[in-house]
Amino acid sequence: MIYADYNGSAPICTDVKDYLIERLKKDGPYSNPNAIHYLGNKVLMGMENARSICAKVLGADYNQIIFNSGATEGISTAFHSCLDGALEKGKKAIIISGIEHSAVVNTGKYWVEKGFEMKILPTLSNGVVDVNALESWLADFGDKLALVAIMAANNETGVIQPYEKISELCNKHNVPYLCDTTQFVGKTLFNFKKSGADFALLSGHKIGALTGTGILMAKNPCSVKPLIIGGGQEKGHRGGTQNYIGNETLAVALKNFEKNLDKIEALNSKRIEFEAEIKRRFPDVVILGEDAPRLASSTYIAYPGIHGQAVQIELESQDIFVTTSSACSDNEPVTSKVLKAMGVTDSVGRGVVRISLGLCSPLEYYDQILEALSKSYEKLAKIKSY
Amino acid sequence: MIYADYNGSAPICTDVKDYLIERLKKDGPYSNPNAIHYLGNKVLMGMENARSICAKVLGADYNQIIFNSGATEGISTAFHSCLDGALEKGKKAIIISGIEHSAVVNTGKYWVEKGFEMKILPTLSNGVVDVNALESWLADFGDKLALVAIMAANNETGVIQPYEKISELCNKHNVPYLCDTTQFVGKTLFNFKKSGADFALLSGHKIGALTGTGILMAKNPCSVKPLIIGGGQEKGHRGGTQNYIGNETLAVALKNFEKNLDKIEALNSKRIEFEAEIKRRFPDVVILGEDAPRLASSTYIAYPGIHGQAVQIELESQDIFVTTSSACSDNEPVTSKVLKAMGVTDSVGRGVVRISLGLCSPLEYYDQILEALSKSYEKLAKIKSY
Repeated sequence: MIYADYNGSAPICTDVKDYLIERLKKDGPYSNPNAIHYLGNKVLMGMENARSICAKVLGADYNQIIFNSGATEGISTAFHSCLDGALEKGKKAIIISGIEHSAVVNTGKYWVEKGFEMKILPTLSNGVVDVNALESWLADFGDKLALVAIMAANNETGVIQPYEKISELCNKHNVPYLCDTTQFVGKTLFNFKKSGADFALLSGHKIGALTGTGILMAKNPCSVKPLIIGGGQEKGHRGGTQNYIGNETLAVALKNFEKNLDKIEALNSKRIEFEAEIKRRFPDVVILGEDAPRLASSTYIAYPGIHGQAVQIELESQDIFVTTSSACSDNEPVTSKVLKAMGVTDSVGRGVVRISLGLCSPLEYYDQILEALSKSYEKLAKIKSY
Repeated sequence: MIYADYNGSAPICTDVKDYLIERLKKDGPYSNPNAIHYLGNKVLMGMENARSICAKVLGADYNQIIFNSGATEGISTAFHSCLDGALEKGKKAIIISGIEHSAVVNTGKYWVEKGFEMKILPTLSNGVVDVNALESWLADFGDKLALVAIMAANNETGVIQPYEKISELCNKHNVPYLCDTTQFVGKTLFNFKKSGADFALLSGHKIGALTGTGILMAKNPCSVKPLIIGGGQEKGHRGGTQNYIGNETLAVALKNFEKNLDKIEALNSKRIEFEAEIKRRFPDVVILGEDAPRLASSTYIAYPGIHGQAVQIELESQDIFVTTSSACSDNEPVTSKVLKAMGVTDSVGRGVVRISLGLCSPLEYYDQILEALSKSYEKLAKIKSY
């Protein structure tokens, strides 16, 4: 079996698996990390040690790491922190891009109902957001903006966005910048402090940690208003007894990522080789965002006229698991919002499948995917689906 | 070692431990439950099967079970669902009791800042909320009330509240009722539909499931507005890729609870016996909420004049782990809010320790706690701390 849907969700990585099995076999420590007895303290120390490790790998300060349940919670929290009460201060607008994840889009829509204006930044045809447009919007509306939310890497195309430049512009205009790093962290190096962003985030299940875990990184932790209120946990930034076991696995997964950093280059080269070969075999094939900087392990590929879902099913029959777009919109066999924002035609848009591997996936997977994909295209080209 | 802080957090139960070790050893299935490939579907089916089991044990309909990250999130979500936009409809007030967990109190305060009035229901000296007062408040202000939030069992005293009567009154006056069942579920039988409440909830870490898991039960799931917005997961009621592994452990823990239901009676009798004996040995000792119906495994006990923290430390030196109050307020060596609401004097209030066991704790633990506590009281009585 080849699992090629890491952008959707990563399997629990081996280090985390081993760590958890050992922890469970030892049967503890278990306790409320906020209890003042020895066991509570032991659990707390374990969790705070995990926080230190996460901070180090992510290039953040220890107190900038707020544990939560995942990236979506981080996004909702960052919006809440910047927008709750902002209208009263004359901050009436937010900017997102047209390629944001539905978690950002839908959270934005919620705040539009509360009276905010949401401006959608255009995207170039290569899948990169239009930074020039952002620059002029910031100059025009900077003092009215409550938040800019633009991702670091796109979940469908894998295209890396100029998030450092965006930070610079936002900082210049004093506008908080939420950088959705869900697809970035764990796939390539990310340094929160160097990024300049006000908020960044991650989901444990995308990086090989336990499901239901996550981190919100906040430049000024004091600016984080709790969305889940509770009893003052996480220094008042996120209520609810902390998921200490899950948080420990975040540290293990991030250490595992750091350990395997040197695999990125080989993965990237192999992916480029794979893409070149499939295009050589099938000249009509389109790689979305081909000319833009992309994550090492993401390929979003279409053979116009062959429906993506048909390709997905063919690959699945060969025990290779890919998706057609993001998991959230997978059930809609239409051109995705991301591709529409890039100006991609339906002819291409309906044909895409997303192939996304992990840092530790064997490079030979690309050879196997190449053969399986070729077979699928050959078969399906005879009975084009649209 | 005797762990007697189940009300703070329960250890992962044996069935969950075994389940997880096996699942990790099998190394999967792992996937995004919203992906439409076979693996995604397999993960989804496992999670939905878990939802069915949880629904059955909790006496809820399948679609009334919304998975989330814990009880605190459930509380924030229920408040958000009932209060967001309520002012505009003339619903200006909420009622909570004086013995609510700080998660409810602090969430209430957040909404007070948004313009709501929060009325605090009085509590009788036995630790039971004053239902007669509630009845007259509902009659007087029913049409202005956006929410009533009163717990099913108190986290400190273990006193069981008349939640069915409260449901009946709230239903009569058409006021949504949030019943905080965090300390109730997993310690005694709870049937959501029979309870009549509009919202109930649980935290996995209180019932032996994985940390960072939880369920919000909603009578009318359509009334649940997502707090964490995301991409439409949990039928739009809770965004973010579901914590499918954690959710599976909720089903395992609830099945384990059901399997051990018959242990409640013996635990209850043993606790009563323990309390009678410690009072016989130390006639000054006070059991908080003694005359009220209580959870089988909770004792909140004080020897006036001996500081609770001193007792806690003495017990800890004998490898018995208890707390002085809830984990959230454990660091404040003053009479807790709950006890103040019951009219308890500082002389008693500063002396309390909370002894809380789990359904599967050996009954002999009470014998050992009895001896250790007696030893502690004997020792500390000579050097009374206040």
